Amino acid sequence: MKQAMLYGPANVGIEERPEPTILQPTDAILRLSATCICGSDLWPYRGIEPITGPTPMGHEYCGIVEEVGSAVKTMKVGDFVVGSFFASDNTCEICQAGYQSRCVHAQLMGTIGTKAQRARVPLADGTLVATPGVPEPDLIPSLLAASDVLGTGWFAAVAAEAGPGKTVAVVGDGAVGLLGVLAAKQLGAERIIAMSRHPERQKLARFYGATDIVEERGDAGVAKIKELTNGLGAHSVIEAVGTQESTMQAIGATRPGGHMGFVGVNYDVSISGIDLFFAGIHVHGGPAPVRRFLPDLLRLICDRKINPGKVFDLTLPLAQVAEGYRAMDERRAIKVLLIPEST
Amino acid sequence: MKQAMLYGPANVGIEERPEPTILQPTDAILRLSATCICGSDLWPYRGIEPITGPTPMGHEYCGIVEEVGSAVKTMKVGDFVVGSFFASDNTCEICQAGYQSRCVHAQLMGTIGTKAQRARVPLADGTLVATPGVPEPDLIPSLLAASDVLGTGWFAAVAAEAGPGKTVAVVGDGAVGLLGVLAAKQLGAERIIAMSRHPERQKLARFYGATDIVEERGDAGVAKIKELTNGLGAHSVIEAVGTQESTMQAIGATRPGGHMGFVGVNYDVSISGIDLFFAGIHVHGGPAPVRRFLPDLLRLICDRKINPGKVFDLTLPLAQVAEGYRAMDERRAIKVLLIPEST
Repeated sequence: MKQAMLYGPANVGIEERPEPTILQPTDAILRLSATCICGSDLWPYRGIEPITGPTPMGHEYCGIVEEVGSAVKTMKVGDFVVGSFFASDNTCEICQAGYQSRCVHAQLMGTIGTKAQRARVPLADGTLVATPGVPEPDLIPSLLAASDVLGTGWFAAVAAEAGPGKTVAVVGDGAVGLLGVLAAKQLGAERIIAMSRHPERQKLARFYGATDIVEERGDAGVAKIKELTNGLGAHSVIEAVGTQESTMQAIGATRPGGHMGFVGVNYDVSISGIDLFFAGIHVHGGPAPVRRFLPDLLRLICDRKINPGKVFDLTLPLAQVAEGYRAMDERRAIKVLLIPEST
Repeated sequence: MKQAMLYGPANVGIEERPEPTILQPTDAILRLSATCICGSDLWPYRGIEPITGPTPMGHEYCGIVEEVGSAVKTMKVGDFVVGSFFASDNTCEICQAGYQSRCVHAQLMGTIGTKAQRARVPLADGTLVATPGVPEPDLIPSLLAASDVLGTGWFAAVAAEAGPGKTVAVVGDGAVGLLGVLAAKQLGAERIIAMSRHPERQKLARFYGATDIVEERGDAGVAKIKELTNGLGAHSVIEAVGTQESTMQAIGATRPGGHMGFVGVNYDVSISGIDLFFAGIHVHGGPAPVRRFLPDLLRLICDRKINPGKVFDLTLPLAQVAEGYRAMDERRAIKVLLIPEST
């Protein structure tokens, strides 16, 4: 089968690789309907996160079950399924508490690589959720979004306790930030402030429910959020970038006693204890337990209540993965969907 | 009146100072029944937090109302009252959300200084809570504890979401940590692990409800907590020290999805963003909004349901404040109660 591989900084291509097979009785093999490029894929692509050799890429996926191991009970060949970027058993104490991304048996799908025609998914019963019937093709982008960016934006909004009566500020106008806006709207937030200086992304933020746009960043951005919230700061702030500046902006924009949900991968961030002490806020984040939200998200998508697939503003065949990375890297595209040619 | 002053590192004494007077119609003047020395008082005493000249000390207090401003409505001369270390209006949006220590009109009682015979309390209606009648003298230490250490330990336990079915670990065996144990017990925690290597403090931790004692610290302490919790970590962890080691110990001891409540003043702590990201925990803390809890705490004390006053293991007349500081500094005493001589 064809699979995307990263060979080194800015060097990504397609090669012929062995078909995946069932290794454990809990595995399933999927024929992927769509996959995509994640903001976090740019870390190794830019050489910030080093790789030691040719590396399979990709952790977002949805598709048709082609084969199941003997222990798989909740799905059958032909089902359309969506899974998270972490495989999880969904039965351990941590999963049952809603933290499937930290399952005691968690496996990173990124190490398997889903930018491919097929993929093996471990712990299929715990990881995958089937849609009711095979969905209409126009729903595929939204279902794919549920695999990571929607689930991650949703988790950030839940971590930030977005809800009725709340003012929510969203730091970051990438796919996750934009879908954080969507999530805040669905969770009933009264006012949603998107922090963005890109006209196209502002437009999408408004489509998803943003009531206000703030173009300022850093201290000026914090001052603007305070100005819009009676000097107090937002009740709920979503951090969907992961830089030092965006983190401080998110902490500063949260009112005392408010909630900051952070999902931006933040390798170079350092938080001063005493700043956090005097902020007096709640902080929660990390790798989103997307599996917790998948059943609800798939229902909302299949009922056409939400349209997260609009974050994909470029669709390419898998063979053009290199152009997809360039478009994301140069910020010409918010998010690139890749279609594996069927075989 | 007599008031304790700090003149420089390890140099504290008593001097004669002007009687406090009503400055605002919302003020009250208290004749203090008891005051005490806080762990945070040791920062300037040790020269870590610099002072610019002779400085009044103290922010914990309870006593009898001697005079009220014309706008004070909820108390009268002769009432026995307890207040927090922050004066607060208790009416602003932040107070109403339960964060009185971050009231938009907050004033630090420490800048007034309550290691004295009398003190002016601003925003008396919002800050002070009266007991039903004048309490028996043996309740005074517990009522004084409510002013800070009990309220702070209680907030830490609430921030850590201690409750039924939860395993709570407490990092720190000072007065706040010990009263965090008490709070976790009152909140219904199933198992309470006190981290302490001091026999006397272990004994008090057990008195307050600790079910387990862990003597190890740092990584060894984290490993021990995991060993006691099926490899997962505690649901709830209280950080009541404020050092880098104690903070990392608290984060490491919390299971993914769990809650860490931190109340140790943590000037020199730096938290790596990516460590917090992959911890996947909830973090909340800061200066405790003691006022939120005061009505309930005073009721529990007056009904003799809890005995937080046992953390005071040394009682001295205010005139011996210097000896009190030495005893705290040398860890000869957990917490020192000071009795202002009445005049």
